[in-house]
Amino acid sequence: MNDRGPARLEAFSDGVFAIAATLLTLEIGVDTTRGDLGGQLTHIWPAYLAYVTTFLIIGVIWINHHHCVSLMRRVDRTFLFINLLLLLTVAFMPFPTRLVAQYLQKSGEQDAVIAYAATMLLMACVYNVWWRYARTGRRLIGEDVPERTLSAVDRAFNPGVPSYAIVFAVAFVSPLASVVITLGIAVFYLPSAALFERGGEPA
Amino acid sequence: MNDRGPARLEAFSDGVFAIAATLLTLEIGVDTTRGDLGGQLTHIWPAYLAYVTTFLIIGVIWINHHHCVSLMRRVDRTFLFINLLLLLTVAFMPFPTRLVAQYLQKSGEQDAVIAYAATMLLMACVYNVWWRYARTGRRLIGEDVPERTLSAVDRAFNPGVPSYAIVFAVAFVSPLASVVITLGIAVFYLPSAALFERGGEPA
Amino acid sequence: MNDRGPARLEAFSDGVFAIAATLLTLEIGVDTTRGDLGGQLTHIWPAYLAYVTTFLIIGVIWINHHHCVSLMRRVDRTFLFINLLLLLTVAFMPFPTRLVAQYLQKSGEQDAVIAYAATMLLMACVYNVWWRYARTGRRLIGEDVPERTLSAVDRAFNPGVPSYAIVFAVAFVSPLASVVITLGIAVFYLPSAALFERGGEPA
Amino acid sequence: MNDRGPARLEAFSDGVFAIAATLLTLEIGVDTTRGDLGGQLTHIWPAYLAYVTTFLIIGVIWINHHHCVSLMRRVDRTFLFINLLLLLTVAFMPFPTRLVAQYLQKSGEQDAVIAYAATMLLMACVYNVWWRYARTGRRLIGEDVPERTLSAVDRAFNPGVPSYAIVFAVAFVSPLASVVITLGIAVFYLPSAALFERGGEPA
Repeated sequence: MNDRGPARLEAFSDGVFAIAATLLTLEIGVDTTRGDLGGQLTHIWPAYLAYVTTFLIIGVIWINHHHCVSLMRRVDRTFLFINLLLLLTVAFMPFPTRLVAQYLQKSGEQDAVIAYAATMLLMACVYNVWWRYARTGRRLIGEDVPERTLSAVDRAFNPGVPSYAIVFAVAFVSPLASVVITLGIAVFYLPSAALFERGGEPA
Repeated sequence: MNDRGPARLEAFSDGVFAIAATLLTLEIGVDTTRGDLGGQLTHIWPAYLAYVTTFLIIGVIWINHHHCVSLMRRVDRTFLFINLLLLLTVAFMPFPTRLVAQYLQKSGEQDAVIAYAATMLLMACVYNVWWRYARTGRRLIGEDVPERTLSAVDRAFNPGVPSYAIVFAVAFVSPLASVVITLGIAVFYLPSAALFERGGEPA
Repeated sequence: MNDRGPARLEAFSDGVFAIAATLLTLEIGVDTTRGDLGGQLTHIWPAYLAYVTTFLIIGVIWINHHHCVSLMRRVDRTFLFINLLLLLTVAFMPFPTRLVAQYLQKSGEQDAVIAYAATMLLMACVYNVWWRYARTGRRLIGEDVPERTLSAVDRAFNPGVPSYAIVFAVAFVSPLASVVITLGIAVFYLPSAALFERGGEPA
Repeated sequence: MNDRGPARLEAFSDGVFAIAATLLTLEIGVDTTRGDLGGQLTHIWPAYLAYVTTFLIIGVIWINHHHCVSLMRRVDRTFLFINLLLLLTVAFMPFPTRLVAQYLQKSGEQDAVIAYAATMLLMACVYNVWWRYARTGRRLIGEDVPERTLSAVDRAFNPGVPSYAIVFAVAFVSPLASVVITLGIAVFYLPSAALFERGGEPA
């Protein structure tokens, strides 16, 4: 009873990831009562920046979630709860993303980006707890998964919280820089297969 | 013809659960025509409270749904209909959640929280009918599922309706307390694996 | 290459069904600038009626879709296209549902309900074409499916277009009656397993 | 570790496709403060045109995605990243679709349709890179897939970028014609099974 396959966990999680990512586009808008649509479409670049950044962040979370769950042979009720907290922070992201889209380069941008960076930092913390719970003592890990594969995932998770802590700190100095660094984390994190693969396979 | 595997039932239900939970975030907003974003972000704490509460409630529903369906070996048309009614109440939740977010600590909070608690109570009633239909005479239950597992699920369902009835009654006295108790039900219900597992496994 | 299993067709269709049904709740709203929330919550009963009606209609479509696809052993490109048209009409439903919610019992209700009934009628026509294409000459049907099962599905589809034609006609006379009849179709259609099962199984 | 089955890639992609397509309907609206609903429902035909066009475009992308992924036996991290970029452009589509719905036949229509066509062109480019990456040297292709099947897919992809480049150019001359041609691409592309099947099967 206590043990369950992770299949339906993945289905529900994938649903939340896909919906949160796709809802982001609802936040992008123009003021139809004003003329000069072309000018407005250029002017709202913070909305595009916020959209692309959060979409890629959710994509990175999804890919890593996918990889980690593939190493587990079962999930328990506590893990379902932690996973729910992770989904809660991901599903929350459209709100601070909208704040960045609306306030960046305007009065209030610092509060908006602090809220955005705080959400990312919180997510990174929950995500770490999520992995540590599954990995400690190989609690939920399949027997056939080699230890070095787990170490590779550890190495991939390690920079997460410090990176987002820096992003959070930078938000107080330069809101725009904070968002751009977040985008950089997503863009450079993702294709650098080295992080995950190193140790997982013979070089 | 009459009997079907529960796989696609799960897929559709998971979709509704994931979407309803993720849509909640659309309800959180600030007034962009006002200044002082930082102050507003603190001021809208009822929106956060409502978001977290409903998200966790839907999460609990999902986990229990998942567990119960795993005990069934088939579903029939009547069960599909009851399941549809359950999904109808879950998909409705973003509306009263938005009411709580908008009205808590303001004039009208009592009506808002009564609507919220009434929705939760209705969901709990439908969810009980849902389980009773499947369980009575082991109508939809797999042969290999031991009776004590079903008894454990019964014990988990039993406090549902009374709890939400209390939440509903409290809404008339203290709207804020009613929402906080609802959050408490979700937070303490979920990790207490004891409810479900007791009886399901040797101690 | 031409033949494919219907699994991913189901996944995509289920996604559209679940999302369209769950989005309906976004259409329900109150005017937060007005007082008397309790009065407003009663006053917007057309929104609840429209929500429940469309939700159950989509639920009926989903259950029948589920049943029909389970009888197919393959899908082809033309069928994928017809299925896409079906999904297009289902995904469109939140718009006329919102019109009914906003205009019922107000000036403009007739146009709103005509738009609603026209959408339902269009859906019923496309759904019939969808089934006829799959069924004619058993084009997409599995070899092991008995003819009487197909006849039972035929009998279930037959009343669809006439029913919605009546609903459409009634919209010109009494908009409220038209919506209530639509709800009746959903409520009475669904649990009456007789329609589908008769002929599909020995009585 | 590096190789993974494409199953969960499909689940996540299908989720984004289904959600993006279904969200389009949220963009359709009428002005409830004005009377003459019947007149308004006719007047907003650009919204219907934009809705149907984008829905079918996403449908075509989904069907082709489905077909291409069925030819792959594995995916790698770089492919996941390219797939994420593809999903990013698809999930973005509701925004320019809304612009077309709001601005077509009004001042600003040219900017709106240029944004729409640019999004389609960008999607076509990313989609080509997506397929080229998988196909070059049969990097991700299953061993049992015959070369002529791949050639058939190549032929189907070849007209994509030029077609959308024409649509983009036409937007500067006649915005309405640009949208209608886009609809034509979707409508005529889809049922012409010839493109994909030719070469994939003996004639």
